[in-house]
Amino acid sequence: MSLVVTGSVGIDTIETPDGQRREEVLGGSCAYFAAAASFYGPVRIVGVAGEDFPPKHAETLKRFGIDTRGLERREGGKTFRWSGKYLENMDHRETTAISLNVLGEAPAPVPKEYEDSAFVFLANGPTAIQRQFLREFPHRKLVVADTMDLWINTTRDELLALLKEIDGLVLNYDEAELLTGMKNTVAAAQHLLTLGPKFVVVKKGEHGCVFAHEDGIGALPAYPAERVVDPTGAGDSFAGGMMGWLAANNAATGTKSGISFHQLKRALAHGTVIASFTIEAFSLERLSKLTRGEVDERYRHYAEMLHLKDEE
Amino acid sequence: MSLVVTGSVGIDTIETPDGQRREEVLGGSCAYFAAAASFYGPVRIVGVAGEDFPPKHAETLKRFGIDTRGLERREGGKTFRWSGKYLENMDHRETTAISLNVLGEAPAPVPKEYEDSAFVFLANGPTAIQRQFLREFPHRKLVVADTMDLWINTTRDELLALLKEIDGLVLNYDEAELLTGMKNTVAAAQHLLTLGPKFVVVKKGEHGCVFAHEDGIGALPAYPAERVVDPTGAGDSFAGGMMGWLAANNAATGTKSGISFHQLKRALAHGTVIASFTIEAFSLERLSKLTRGEVDERYRHYAEMLHLKDEE
Repeated sequence: MSLVVTGSVGIDTIETPDGQRREEVLGGSCAYFAAAASFYGPVRIVGVAGEDFPPKHAETLKRFGIDTRGLERREGGKTFRWSGKYLENMDHRETTAISLNVLGEAPAPVPKEYEDSAFVFLANGPTAIQRQFLREFPHRKLVVADTMDLWINTTRDELLALLKEIDGLVLNYDEAELLTGMKNTVAAAQHLLTLGPKFVVVKKGEHGCVFAHEDGIGALPAYPAERVVDPTGAGDSFAGGMMGWLAANNAATGTKSGISFHQLKRALAHGTVIASFTIEAFSLERLSKLTRGEVDERYRHYAEMLHLKDEE
Repeated sequence: MSLVVTGSVGIDTIETPDGQRREEVLGGSCAYFAAAASFYGPVRIVGVAGEDFPPKHAETLKRFGIDTRGLERREGGKTFRWSGKYLENMDHRETTAISLNVLGEAPAPVPKEYEDSAFVFLANGPTAIQRQFLREFPHRKLVVADTMDLWINTTRDELLALLKEIDGLVLNYDEAELLTGMKNTVAAAQHLLTLGPKFVVVKKGEHGCVFAHEDGIGALPAYPAERVVDPTGAGDSFAGGMMGWLAANNAATGTKSGISFHQLKRALAHGTVIASFTIEAFSLERLSKLTRGEVDERYRHYAEMLHLKDEE
């Protein structure tokens, strides 16, 4: 089924603790999400870049088979830029420079051809714009949103209204705490479930995720990674793998909650696997070389690692 | 098969962030480990208490069916006491008072009747005493040790010697980092494997565990707990569940590495499940009421939660 993501497309400059550095690489939530989702089926993006957006970055997106008709290249505008530096444990980073540029202006228009999109992912962005975007997809069957501390702090009421309009919420563990005031991730996820969404996924980076669904609570570990080169985009590609799998399996209807606990778990396992490739290299370098065979192989290994049944 | 644990028996006073407090409750690594292991089969303890050790605490241990012949009640001595206070997120705690008492004296003698013990767990303690203890069990088939920052900092060479004498090492993630200098838990576990043990388990509290075995690396999430009353003893009961299951399944022989990756994983899943009960109440209060049926039920639920195979 048709999957669309709205979010940022950007140019990143990244430094890692081992002294590596990449300048002006492709980044942004849309890019990571869509590249990840592309392993499962077609994906459309809605985002805005400036006239300085390097053609090679647009080419990279197209090579994934991403539908970029919704990627506006705004004349006279400059692309969103982010520079960051990872701290020693790779779990925390500091932003060394940020320029919103076109991201601070009007959002990109949604192409008419995208109107039939059934699976909608609203990557992190201003809450009011997320709410406006979802209305642009009248045939939506499953809407999932991400958010961040900035919107929790500045547009909480708007965010609470959004929660009633979406099927799923994906956010980081510290954001879940900020939004609920609860230190316990499991309790926070359970509580968020009462505010509207049919499922809530709390991302914990190297510690995996916790998820809440009306049929229960779950947790999955990250795929064990001995070496993390660049964690940028891990969360967005996790969401891309998840939504890509749900769309490919048309997992939005047929149960009261839209998708079953088991479907959600499998989707999250795919997100986990895709994210584990993303962090093996800078930007989209690893995903650019990745094959669906490698994805399936690693998924099988992950499932085997977590297999606890039988022979007792 | 016969399982023995050497470690501390103590009296704890615990405060939690919600204002709850328990005074002079039963604690110590031996107590938590053995109570957890008792759900799988017989378990023996070697530890020393003082003459002030309350008879009700000894009774509690016996009610689990724990063999306490190796629990010395030292005349003229006082029992190890620890007071601690958990900080708001339950992940960190501060020690408000500690008195080693008899724990700072000679260790308890190993009863002659324990000599045939095949499964040996050396709970956290002075490294030299751990090494001395393991020699007291000439029929040992599987020896697993825990350690902590104090010994890593003060008796590192002794600890490196111990690593060559044991089959498995269990330690916290920050201790793994301290011992290896590696921030990445997976890399640290892999590295520790090269120093002697056939398997290494890194405990991450609410984030579960990462484990390294010659046949691969694994990770398991914690059982999702919406409410943690008292995390004291979670790590020791995790180890107790693990060793209890290994001993009950005689998982020490038959493969080159002693136990297979799959056996280790199942043992750790049992440890995870038992620990999830421990934290539901103070001290051994929850384990005292626990039934094997409840353990099996939660294990089934945990296995189902992690089940990713089929129907793709």
